[in-house]
Amino acid sequence: MSSLLEQEIHSQPEVIAHLLEQETEHIKKIVAQLPAFDYILIAARGSSDHAATYAKYAWATMAGYPIALAAPSLQTLYATPPRMKNALVVGISQSGQSPDIVGVLEEGRRQGRPTIAITNDGNSALAKAADHVVELHAGQERSVAATKTYTAQLAIMMLFAAIWNGDGQRLNELQRMPEIIAQTLKSSGEIAQHAERYRYMNQCIVVGRGYNYSTSFELALKLKELTYVMATAYSSADFRHGPIATIEEGLPTILIMPTGATFADMLELAKDLQKRKAELLIISDAAEALALAQTRFAIPSGIPEWLSPIAAIIPGQLFGLHLTLSKRLEPDTPRGLNKITLTH
Amino acid sequence: MSSLLEQEIHSQPEVIAHLLEQETEHIKKIVAQLPAFDYILIAARGSSDHAATYAKYAWATMAGYPIALAAPSLQTLYATPPRMKNALVVGISQSGQSPDIVGVLEEGRRQGRPTIAITNDGNSALAKAADHVVELHAGQERSVAATKTYTAQLAIMMLFAAIWNGDGQRLNELQRMPEIIAQTLKSSGEIAQHAERYRYMNQCIVVGRGYNYSTSFELALKLKELTYVMATAYSSADFRHGPIATIEEGLPTILIMPTGATFADMLELAKDLQKRKAELLIISDAAEALALAQTRFAIPSGIPEWLSPIAAIIPGQLFGLHLTLSKRLEPDTPRGLNKITLTH
Repeated sequence: MSSLLEQEIHSQPEVIAHLLEQETEHIKKIVAQLPAFDYILIAARGSSDHAATYAKYAWATMAGYPIALAAPSLQTLYATPPRMKNALVVGISQSGQSPDIVGVLEEGRRQGRPTIAITNDGNSALAKAADHVVELHAGQERSVAATKTYTAQLAIMMLFAAIWNGDGQRLNELQRMPEIIAQTLKSSGEIAQHAERYRYMNQCIVVGRGYNYSTSFELALKLKELTYVMATAYSSADFRHGPIATIEEGLPTILIMPTGATFADMLELAKDLQKRKAELLIISDAAEALALAQTRFAIPSGIPEWLSPIAAIIPGQLFGLHLTLSKRLEPDTPRGLNKITLTH
Repeated sequence: MSSLLEQEIHSQPEVIAHLLEQETEHIKKIVAQLPAFDYILIAARGSSDHAATYAKYAWATMAGYPIALAAPSLQTLYATPPRMKNALVVGISQSGQSPDIVGVLEEGRRQGRPTIAITNDGNSALAKAADHVVELHAGQERSVAATKTYTAQLAIMMLFAAIWNGDGQRLNELQRMPEIIAQTLKSSGEIAQHAERYRYMNQCIVVGRGYNYSTSFELALKLKELTYVMATAYSSADFRHGPIATIEEGLPTILIMPTGATFADMLELAKDLQKRKAELLIISDAAEALALAQTRFAIPSGIPEWLSPIAAIIPGQLFGLHLTLSKRLEPDTPRGLNKITLTH
């Protein structure tokens, strides 16, 4: 393994196992201490924002909370923060340093609302601005593209969802994730071979829905950061409201469609796209879906849909890595990016 | 004017003037009748979702309300609608027919929350599901790509913002919009000439922030629907958190940067992108910004920032129209789309 990115991708079973061990009881305690709230306001950017998008579905479906994704510029540029009455305020940031995300938590605290920081750095400004800090315990992430910190953030969102939900079975299911990630990582060699086909791809579409709406955005971001491919992510519903016009013969289209409540809708889209002669790359546990694709990334079967995003992003990370190598680019230091981005 | 699209673009001064006349007092009455609420949940797709994105900024900045954009699949696919306690529920849809958007309003009503429908069809299912209906009064939209109904939706969002804000000066400012749109439309011939340069463009980036985050999404959608160009929209902050890696010499990058609170941040990005040798197409009222661009779409000066999205989208609509003609495509009936999209 020559790159930090590859090492970090393969460290994920261990990172997630460690995180579950460290944070399960801690999150139970936080949940027990929170005052009443009606909805949750989450501030995040980049990959962390995709973890927030996952929470928008999981925290609503499993715990009934509506989620508002913050617009940090309301604080930082307009200086008109919204009233946060009855909100729980959550900030997610790997580094814990981006001033706009810290600003939203500080405002929550100023308004007397409960605040939670989710970060890989327990001494960061974000951690200091929060009542409760949940650490990723992922170790330093040295590659610029986030992988292990993204799945660690997802696992934390899943822990909150399971604990709020109260069904103990959910926490048991979550314990299987390190093993499922390890199993999914075994497809690395196969994915390296498939990546060759996309050596000269310069744009593509990525579609997921519901829990995996987040996966479509994270996969598209990995391709953009690592391979500079113009990858655009959509939900299947938004995609039908206009952007589907961009589909033409041979256009690479990545569909993330594990079994679950969104599967029938995604399958209908896949069949439509096949008729329109798009090139389909499908990530799924369902043979019926994979059969429609030119390129098939199978994930283990039997994963509950709410946990599928943590398995479904793994082939996406591996595809990003191997396509980067295939294009003879540098996986650890993409052009024009720094590990920590300070936006206002 | 040979296309319906062009006719509808040019009808906007009249449409907005008529709407302001018809709905100003009506919206004042609705606002007076609404019970107390802590935050606003908005359901919308496509161009209507971009009007919702505008409201996320305008209703927060001018009236202090946090906005949550609904995930309709929570109702339609997962059958686990969130608790909507203390929410005002708003649905936006040109046709008023998309079942997923109607479903969110019906759920709001089931939970005893106040509901508002914003639609071009006062007899639609969306209208029937709501306590209050605000019509666009835009006349039938016959072109598949939304133009006049988008600016009409924006005008309604602006009316609510001004009325909630309570400063009468805001409503006066809004009355100037028909004239400002008419003035902006005069650049049509100039934009037709500029569009020639982009005849062979097949991908581009669109960046806006704050109030004009919505404009970047709407402009990108017009390009995708009409010209099949793979256009991807970002806020300047999100763009710096990864996707900026896709910038390479000559990559067409459209910056929407009217004067206001976000201008300094956008100007910094424009200068950075100029260094990276992106091809800049800039929509602005500021000479300092336009000077950085290869292609300049000037909008009238003196527009308050909160109203700028309704002016800034006009050159985008015209660019979409003229690029469609330049590419010898069909402006009224893009491939693979119907006027009404029914998503679940």
